[in-house]
Amino acid sequence: MSTLQVPSSVPSASEDCEQLKKAFQGWGTNEDLIISILAHRNAAQRKRIRETYAETYKEDLLKALDKELTSDFERIVMVWTLDPAERDALLANESTKKWTASNQVIMEIACTRSSHELFLVRQAYHARFKRSIEEDVAHHTTGDFRKILVLLVSSYRYEGPEVNLTLAKHEAKILHEKIKDKAYNDEEIVRILTTRSKAQLNATFNHYKDAFGNAINKDLKTDPKNEFLALLRGTVKCLTFPQKYFEKLLRLTINKMGTDEWALTRVVTTRAEVDMQQIKEEYQRRNSVPLDHAISKDTHGDYEAMLLALIGHGKS
Amino acid sequence: MSTLQVPSSVPSASEDCEQLKKAFQGWGTNEDLIISILAHRNAAQRKRIRETYAETYKEDLLKALDKELTSDFERIVMVWTLDPAERDALLANESTKKWTASNQVIMEIACTRSSHELFLVRQAYHARFKRSIEEDVAHHTTGDFRKILVLLVSSYRYEGPEVNLTLAKHEAKILHEKIKDKAYNDEEIVRILTTRSKAQLNATFNHYKDAFGNAINKDLKTDPKNEFLALLRGTVKCLTFPQKYFEKLLRLTINKMGTDEWALTRVVTTRAEVDMQQIKEEYQRRNSVPLDHAISKDTHGDYEAMLLALIGHGKS
Repeated sequence: MSTLQVPSSVPSASEDCEQLKKAFQGWGTNEDLIISILAHRNAAQRKRIRETYAETYKEDLLKALDKELTSDFERIVMVWTLDPAERDALLANESTKKWTASNQVIMEIACTRSSHELFLVRQAYHARFKRSIEEDVAHHTTGDFRKILVLLVSSYRYEGPEVNLTLAKHEAKILHEKIKDKAYNDEEIVRILTTRSKAQLNATFNHYKDAFGNAINKDLKTDPKNEFLALLRGTVKCLTFPQKYFEKLLRLTINKMGTDEWALTRVVTTRAEVDMQQIKEEYQRRNSVPLDHAISKDTHGDYEAMLLALIGHGKS
Repeated sequence: MSTLQVPSSVPSASEDCEQLKKAFQGWGTNEDLIISILAHRNAAQRKRIRETYAETYKEDLLKALDKELTSDFERIVMVWTLDPAERDALLANESTKKWTASNQVIMEIACTRSSHELFLVRQAYHARFKRSIEEDVAHHTTGDFRKILVLLVSSYRYEGPEVNLTLAKHEAKILHEKIKDKAYNDEEIVRILTTRSKAQLNATFNHYKDAFGNAINKDLKTDPKNEFLALLRGTVKCLTFPQKYFEKLLRLTINKMGTDEWALTRVVTTRAEVDMQQIKEEYQRRNSVPLDHAISKDTHGDYEAMLLALIGHGKS
C-alpha cells in the first residue's frame, strides 16, 4: 500500500505548474509550496506536470528544480519527480559508477520490481544512457558478482501463481547441498535464484526450511563479512519479502553515524507509491518506534519535510 | 525485405474464414485453397483471421488445421499462421526439449530478432508455457552453453547507431587475447557477445580483422568439431550478418541426405516476412542456383507449394 496522500480534488497540471513557477520566483524559493504540490501527486500526475511545464515555460521542470534547490532536498525532489522507470534507470546507472557503485542497489531494483516494471527500466535505460543496463552492469563487475547481477537485471520472471511442488523440493535439495558444501557461487544456485518465479522460489525456500531445519538465509550467514553471501541473502529477501528487506535497510541507514541520505532518499522515493505502508508497519514492529519519529530525529528542514510527506506523516 | 505476396485487394477476414471453412468441409481438404489464403496474408491479417474464425465458428483455427492437415504441410501451415512472437516462443520451447533440443536455434532466435521482438517472445513464452524462457533454457543446459545462452535470450541490447571506437578497439583486443589463449569460454568473451549493441559489435569485429589479420570467426574455427566454438561463430554471424547465417543453414538443410524439414520450415516461416529476399540473393550468390529450384528439387506436394509461396516463387 502506498503512503502517498493525493488531495481529493487535484488542481489541473497547468495550475500546478503556475504555482511551481511562482515558488521559483522572487527572493528565495518557496520550498513548502514545492512540497505541497509535488509530494502529493502520483506518478501519472507528476508526468503530466512535467509535460505541461515544458510546454508552457519551454524549460524542463527538473532543470528548474536543479537551479532552485540544493543538497539532499534537491536530490529527493528530483528523484521523486522522475517517472518510476526513469528513476530506477538513474539509480541503477549510479550504482555502476566508480564512486557510487553498489551491487546491492542493482540487485534491489532487479528483484523488488515486477517483471514488467523491470522491463520498463531497461527501456528507460536505453533512452537515457544509450546503452543497455546489462551492458553497464557487466562492464562494471567481475566474477561471481557479475555472474549473478547481470542475470538478475536481465530477468523477466514468470509472474503467475502456479507452483510446482516436486520441483520446489528438488531445487531446495540442490540449494541445500551446494550451501552445505559452501559452493555459494555454484551455477545451480545462480540459476535457481535468477530464473524461477517468485511464487516458485517461495515454495522452494519454504520446503528448504521444513526439510533442513534452517531458513535458507540463516545457512547463508556463515561469514558475516562475505559480501557475496550478503548479496545472496538480499536476493532471497527481496524476492520473497521485500518489505522486510526495506525495513532493515531503513534501520541501518538511520542508525548509522550520520544518516545515509542516498539510501534513505532511494527507499522513500521508490517505495512511497508501492508498499511504504507495510514497510512502516514492519519498521514499527521491529524497532518499537514509528518510522516518522526515527526520520524526524535524524533529518531536518525541507529534506525532513519532504520525507515525511512521502511516507504519509499524520496519516494513521 | 519480405518475400510475402499479399494481393493488392485482400478479402475481409470473414470472407477468408468462410473460404477456409469451405476448404475443410466435404470429402478431403482443399490444400490449394488454404495455401492461396494463408500464405498470402501478413501477420496482422493472419491474426485477424484467427480472431474472426474463433468468433464465427467457436473453434480455434489452429485446432481446425490440426485436424485437417498432416505431416510437414501441417507443421508449416500451423507454424506460419502463429503470431511471430508466439511462433518464436514455440520454437524456443521445442529447442529446450529432450528430443528436439537445439542450442543453435535458441541462439538464432535470441540474436536475429530485434530487442523489442525478443521481449515480445519472452511475453508470449509466459502466456503459453507459464514459465520464463530463461528458466527453461537454464534448466535444460549446463556449463558454458548455459552461461552464454541464458544471457543471449535475456538480452535487451541497445539498438541506437552510436559506436564507441575506443571501446571497440579495447574489446577487440580482449577478444583476440582470449581466443589466442584458447580461453573461448572466458567471461569477457561472453560479456562482450551478450551485452554489446549490434552496431558496437560490428565495429569491434571490424577492428579485430584490421588489427589482427583474420576475421574473428576464422580464429574461432580451430576445431570444427567443437560445438561451443560453432555456437560462438553462429552468434557472431547472427548478430552481424543474419542473412548469411540463414543462407548457410538453408544450404546445409537442403543438401543433407534427407532434407531437415524442421529447420527448413523454421527458416522460411520466420524470415519470409523479414529478410527472405536478401537470403535468396545470398543463396543464389553462394550456390549458383536459385533457392526455389533447390527447394523444388528436395520437397514435394503441398509442403513444397507452401514453401514456394512463402519465398515468393515467381516474383523476381
